[in-house]
Amino acid sequence: MQKFSRNHRITAITKVLFENPNKIISLNNFTEMFNIAKSTVSEDIVMVRDTLTKLNMGKIETVSGAAGGIKYVCGISYEKSKEFAERLCIILKNRERIIPGDFLYMTDIMFNPQIIYSAGVILASAFISQKVDYVVTVETKGIPLAYEVAKMLGIQLVVVRRETKFTEGSTITINYVSGSTGRIQNMSLSKKAMKIKSKCIFIDDFMRAGGTANGIISLLKEFESELVGIGVLIDNVETPKKLVREYTSIVDFKGIDEHGEAQLFPSENFK
Amino acid sequence: MQKFSRNHRITAITKVLFENPNKIISLNNFTEMFNIAKSTVSEDIVMVRDTLTKLNMGKIETVSGAAGGIKYVCGISYEKSKEFAERLCIILKNRERIIPGDFLYMTDIMFNPQIIYSAGVILASAFISQKVDYVVTVETKGIPLAYEVAKMLGIQLVVVRRETKFTEGSTITINYVSGSTGRIQNMSLSKKAMKIKSKCIFIDDFMRAGGTANGIISLLKEFESELVGIGVLIDNVETPKKLVREYTSIVDFKGIDEHGEAQLFPSENFK
Repeated sequence: MQKFSRNHRITAITKVLFENPNKIISLNNFTEMFNIAKSTVSEDIVMVRDTLTKLNMGKIETVSGAAGGIKYVCGISYEKSKEFAERLCIILKNRERIIPGDFLYMTDIMFNPQIIYSAGVILASAFISQKVDYVVTVETKGIPLAYEVAKMLGIQLVVVRRETKFTEGSTITINYVSGSTGRIQNMSLSKKAMKIKSKCIFIDDFMRAGGTANGIISLLKEFESELVGIGVLIDNVETPKKLVREYTSIVDFKGIDEHGEAQLFPSENFK
Repeated sequence: MQKFSRNHRITAITKVLFENPNKIISLNNFTEMFNIAKSTVSEDIVMVRDTLTKLNMGKIETVSGAAGGIKYVCGISYEKSKEFAERLCIILKNRERIIPGDFLYMTDIMFNPQIIYSAGVILASAFISQKVDYVVTVETKGIPLAYEVAKMLGIQLVVVRRETKFTEGSTITINYVSGSTGRIQNMSLSKKAMKIKSKCIFIDDFMRAGGTANGIISLLKEFESELVGIGVLIDNVETPKKLVREYTSIVDFKGIDEHGEAQLFPSENFK
């Protein structure tokens, strides 16, 4: 059996905790890994906990009971969140991003792991104190962001499809009205994808009138389930939000001004 | 300025490194964070490096030069990879997963952050020593896995779409023949998604005849780019692979036997 110093153990404990956000990890895991007493592991954990608190990097929670242990709960300071939102605005303001129809090209942002990781931590932190069973998104661009949020919350991701696929088994399909275009659209979900009576949050890349979020509410009703929160990376605040009231966003988009410049600002929470 | 002990610093260094896989982090980052000398940070890093090596949890590489620093390179032991593949086979063998047409329902697996994180580390480790510019996938089910691989390699994810979208700007669309059905299908990619003359790997959930991978090769040619590797979670070894020769997989699927049981085994690399 190898011997591990406290410094070594702390590295390993930190890695295991960060690889399993919001999942309870039994202390036995570590006593076996290092062949040491529980009291020694507890002292190691105090060190890890202290650092996270001091540096505003999330926290370690202790869960007591037979199935107890410790878990890493993600977190980010107000300053860091704001800094991230400001940096994202600068990236998005690049004039080359404006495409015909006054849309912003942001696909590369939604598929950039470093950006999406930070955005995921910010959005997950907004829902971490709630009891949530699933993170729901609609294909395609919001999937990595929703995945990061699900990972941080330690729960399963559910991806709603635009069309039914034969690899999904029996599905439930609903129609909904797109808030911005008024067109009727479909969304469908495998019956195997979700247990009934679940609490869900909806995560997406971009919010216009909130038609998609409304569609999600209808779809969840078919699973006797409930939408308890909404989080998006970018909120088009130019579109009147008739359809959804409460949601969290990181960046506000106010359209393109007369000089051809995209108007982007950190969302209300970061002002 | 707060004071940080070595134990505290090691926790923070570990967290920062794991949050930025395969990205070079300057030591100045840490000297400023803790207000300490470079030599002290170097000693801290030796501790982190030692632990990872001892526990087979990846490694820390030093990059010299003006833009130098350290980076965390993901890694996983042969035993852990094999254990993961075996556990995945057991999960997938559940009879309730068999759906009409002798398909396996595996959508929940592809959207399970804990499973996809481990699979991502295994596949990324197979490509970590190559120079890769992008991880490419086709929507939808493989996106979280491809995202994890991209994150571990510290590079951008590119998602090829089945249809063109007006939020993508100008796109290039190609036709390809599905290897298993023989049908002609489309795939398209925004011209903004990729620099020309890039080296890419293709990551997907499931491989049949390899028609999709072949389509990706054609699409990449339009970007004067090259496919340098393929990785999938599950390989349908029942389908003769006429179209693609080299690829990495984690689990082999050999169809459903006469007792209605799915035949699943860890792939060649883990036997």
